[in-house]
Amino acid sequence: MPIDELKESQPDVYQQFVTIAETLERHYRDMQDMEFTIERGRLFMLQTRNGKRTAAAALQIAVDLVSEGMLTKEEALAKIDPKSLDALLHPTFEPKALKNACPIASGLPASPGAACGRIYFTAADASEASKRGEKVVLVRLETSPEDIEGMYASQGILTARGGMTSHAAVVARGMGTCCVAGCSEVAISEKAHTLTDKSGHVYREGDWMSLDGSTGKVYGEALPTIEAQVSGNFQTIMQWADEVRTLKVRTNADTPHDAEVAVKFGAEGIGLCRTEHMFFDEARIPAMREMIVSNDVDSRRRALAKLLPMQRGDFKGIYKAMGGRPVTIRFLDPPLHEFLPTEEADIRALAKEMNLTYDALKHTIENLHEFNPMLGHRGCRLAVTYPEIAEMQTRAVIEAAIETRQECGIEVVPEIMIPLVGDVKELEFVKAVVDKTAKEVMAERKMEIPYLVGTMIEVPRAALTADKIAACAEFFSFGTNDLSQMTFGFSRDDAGKFLDDYYKKKIFESDPFARLDQEGVGKLVKMAVDLGKSVRPKIKLGICGEHGGDPSSIEFCHRVGLNYVSCSPFRVPIARLAAAQAKINEKK
Amino acid sequence: MPIDELKESQPDVYQQFVTIAETLERHYRDMQDMEFTIERGRLFMLQTRNGKRTAAAALQIAVDLVSEGMLTKEEALAKIDPKSLDALLHPTFEPKALKNACPIASGLPASPGAACGRIYFTAADASEASKRGEKVVLVRLETSPEDIEGMYASQGILTARGGMTSHAAVVARGMGTCCVAGCSEVAISEKAHTLTDKSGHVYREGDWMSLDGSTGKVYGEALPTIEAQVSGNFQTIMQWADEVRTLKVRTNADTPHDAEVAVKFGAEGIGLCRTEHMFFDEARIPAMREMIVSNDVDSRRRALAKLLPMQRGDFKGIYKAMGGRPVTIRFLDPPLHEFLPTEEADIRALAKEMNLTYDALKHTIENLHEFNPMLGHRGCRLAVTYPEIAEMQTRAVIEAAIETRQECGIEVVPEIMIPLVGDVKELEFVKAVVDKTAKEVMAERKMEIPYLVGTMIEVPRAALTADKIAACAEFFSFGTNDLSQMTFGFSRDDAGKFLDDYYKKKIFESDPFARLDQEGVGKLVKMAVDLGKSVRPKIKLGICGEHGGDPSSIEFCHRVGLNYVSCSPFRVPIARLAAAQAKINEKK
Repeated sequence: MPIDELKESQPDVYQQFVTIAETLERHYRDMQDMEFTIERGRLFMLQTRNGKRTAAAALQIAVDLVSEGMLTKEEALAKIDPKSLDALLHPTFEPKALKNACPIASGLPASPGAACGRIYFTAADASEASKRGEKVVLVRLETSPEDIEGMYASQGILTARGGMTSHAAVVARGMGTCCVAGCSEVAISEKAHTLTDKSGHVYREGDWMSLDGSTGKVYGEALPTIEAQVSGNFQTIMQWADEVRTLKVRTNADTPHDAEVAVKFGAEGIGLCRTEHMFFDEARIPAMREMIVSNDVDSRRRALAKLLPMQRGDFKGIYKAMGGRPVTIRFLDPPLHEFLPTEEADIRALAKEMNLTYDALKHTIENLHEFNPMLGHRGCRLAVTYPEIAEMQTRAVIEAAIETRQECGIEVVPEIMIPLVGDVKELEFVKAVVDKTAKEVMAERKMEIPYLVGTMIEVPRAALTADKIAACAEFFSFGTNDLSQMTFGFSRDDAGKFLDDYYKKKIFESDPFARLDQEGVGKLVKMAVDLGKSVRPKIKLGICGEHGGDPSSIEFCHRVGLNYVSCSPFRVPIARLAAAQAKINEKK
Repeated sequence: MPIDELKESQPDVYQQFVTIAETLERHYRDMQDMEFTIERGRLFMLQTRNGKRTAAAALQIAVDLVSEGMLTKEEALAKIDPKSLDALLHPTFEPKALKNACPIASGLPASPGAACGRIYFTAADASEASKRGEKVVLVRLETSPEDIEGMYASQGILTARGGMTSHAAVVARGMGTCCVAGCSEVAISEKAHTLTDKSGHVYREGDWMSLDGSTGKVYGEALPTIEAQVSGNFQTIMQWADEVRTLKVRTNADTPHDAEVAVKFGAEGIGLCRTEHMFFDEARIPAMREMIVSNDVDSRRRALAKLLPMQRGDFKGIYKAMGGRPVTIRFLDPPLHEFLPTEEADIRALAKEMNLTYDALKHTIENLHEFNPMLGHRGCRLAVTYPEIAEMQTRAVIEAAIETRQECGIEVVPEIMIPLVGDVKELEFVKAVVDKTAKEVMAERKMEIPYLVGTMIEVPRAALTADKIAACAEFFSFGTNDLSQMTFGFSRDDAGKFLDDYYKKKIFESDPFARLDQEGVGKLVKMAVDLGKSVRPKIKLGICGEHGGDPSSIEFCHRVGLNYVSCSPFRVPIARLAAAQAKINEKK
């Protein structure tokens, strides 16, 4: 019976019900889902519980309860699940269309949102189709850094292999692009350009497909999507969160586009700008490769000189997008072999292009092979071997800051971040290169600009010797992805194979790459914070691992005294709310 | 002028010289290398310094000085460089032959000693030649676990690739076999079975070659060697060291032969018996491979049942060789793909042998592929996924102990060591499997025997949470090889490529895999010792990484309160002396 009818037919009972309902909602300070019955004119309340709701409804209720004076702003903030905001920030399927659709397969919900497009099996094909104006879904066995451009061009990404922390999943979350990963229920042939589902149905290039990155479901048809609507309530809640929180929220962004998106979502700076992503670009990778195959410093410098203007341009774009907010730029991190092909045909083609013999290029690639690339020649170890890379990157950072100031009046204080430091002497060595180059550039340009040099804390030894390192580092940024890998001895790329057994056998409760392990990894973070502050009391402290966007990890970051968390643009609102909740919990 | 002549011709001066020499040697408490002149019957002393000496001479001098009452035993022990003992324990070249020989190349002095033999380019060829009674030198680009048998059969091992901690180097040191590693000055063709030196001279299978593992030099001819002579002085010094030291010395040994050698050198137990080395044996690897390709628990159990009697036999042999001394047995550690071939031809051959299709076997191998095997599915993670492996190994350990007691009256208390634990729940899970199986075996055999279950501390997280882990572990053994890899974020197999730059640029002083990094890795060790003792005050503590044989690391182990160090058999005397010196230094 509609409630209005009750009001008409039995006004006394209706009034009694309203009073009880108000009492209950006041008592539970939340919207109630009540069951009641009326027998012979008498009202019986049978059950009450906090009502389930969509994220949009939750915000509406929170705002209503505050405006009705039932809750304070802080109480309202505490009631919203930060993770639920995700649904508001991404496209969803039209509920009606979704209801009638039947998934053809299911994978991991690796990056939320709904996507619909024509399938393509290579990054290049996806890019081209996108340029023709098509909506595209990229389908791959797994993705690698070379696929970045195609990933950018796609509405959604589907992979057959890899877990929640595979390349596809991490990059897609960073981009805010829908992704279903590790969908082993379908057979993908990258050669034949086909996807075959369990029933044997074959999907070919150009066929329509829809992905739900929030559930992991894959649909073999085009389903209409609804764009995300960041409503007024959302803005209200975010404003309340900002009033409460003391932890700053930055973003991980490698492009002006990501930076702009993040600022719109409330990012207060960039905590991690990965410079290598810029080198994978089709137009740039040749110069990068030329640098790698160089046999002496001079030819390496010549190749780096080609990269300099591009990199400087990147930084200017990012500085401008951030409008004077702090920008932390991490120097080249990945092992060099990631920039070279692995398949014989590709090596042959590249050798021809580079005017090298196949054997010479093959030899270079073999020499760069590593048994455990995660623990290999990368991060600051590259700058120790090839200081000229750090010189070029410093030049790009400082020149871009000077030009941005000259052209737009934006005052940038770049934060140069040296990755993978394990011993203060590594940092001292690279910092000397940075300082010398920066001084040269400022003399050439006749302009002084301030900048900071700091380090990632991502190697356990860096955390253990953080007092020594803080003597040289002006800031620490906790790279908790790698720090978790090394502290647990887990390779993110491989752990998916056995972590399922860990959950089944109740050894682990949650994925240590998604939720910071406070007992082990957190102990190292805490130790590094304390040691760092003991030497440099005002040292700037942040986190730029994926944990920077996870609410329980954010609470930990607040508690141990970090200044900011940094996360992918689409996680910024989640982090703002989680940071506010951390502050509220602390007061309790 | 011979001193005897002086005695004859100028007895006064001679007497004066003897008095001064005695005064100086008493003052410096060491043999002196003196320069003097006699002018017009007058003695002028020009210079004196501690005399340089061979290791054998150093022992002789120490023993002499003690017997003359010039030094106490402790003072004498303090004067001997423990590392110098190495030379006494391995064959050397005849000095005269060496003087006239010219090396054809130089590599890393990876394992000391002198070797002379005919060269062979595969482990199988080396084994066969050795069975025919030939002296053999194994020449490989690099070695892998499949080469073990061939390495055992060889006098010496020469590799073109790999550093001081490559597979060849580590295994050779363990065996006490001479090894020159990373000798990139020669070109080795494993296909053509040739070695070509810088001058272009080609050496073929069966040609003679000599290696000096103490200098890294390679000779293209047969040089006569002299066997090691462990003299009476050596025994005397060792006895003194044993009287002083409180730190026990165990050995890393995987075979009865190694165990016997180590006991002869004074080992007081086995600190690390790596069970997987037994599975690489030609006769056993088929059952191991059958286990790996099994698709269900039952077929896995059937394959493991084939391994059980072999493994039980291994342990009995080792228990008997150790005569009741403690034996720590580490459960299966390496990733399973190490037991499968990688080359297409080998995969085809194995598929045929195993009655599988090539595609099926290839698929299994691909599924086992890991990006960072060092951080992959290995150690206790294998036992979590396949508890039946731990069951079989427990059965072998306990049955062997029972039979050894029944057959020889030797009472063994096996120490079962679970590797790669990072969280106490992993240990609890595996320990439950061990305890259940042990109970079953003892009920079947109607005999109770005591045993311990403990863990390696080799993952940083284990050190950080050692208090939790000690609640379940009856002993800790610090696996400082892996602990150093993960704490530094260095892969041992790859770090050789960039560590040279670290030494050149004064970032590192020494190889962290050879000498324990006390500042970083040592901090974790200390933390684990303290946390472990806080929960289990009498917890047994040892070290089984390569550092267990390095004098400066041994001093650290003594200082932080470990009960024992464990090292390769040929390092046991070094460790005994270093342990004595640690105690002596502590008193100062």
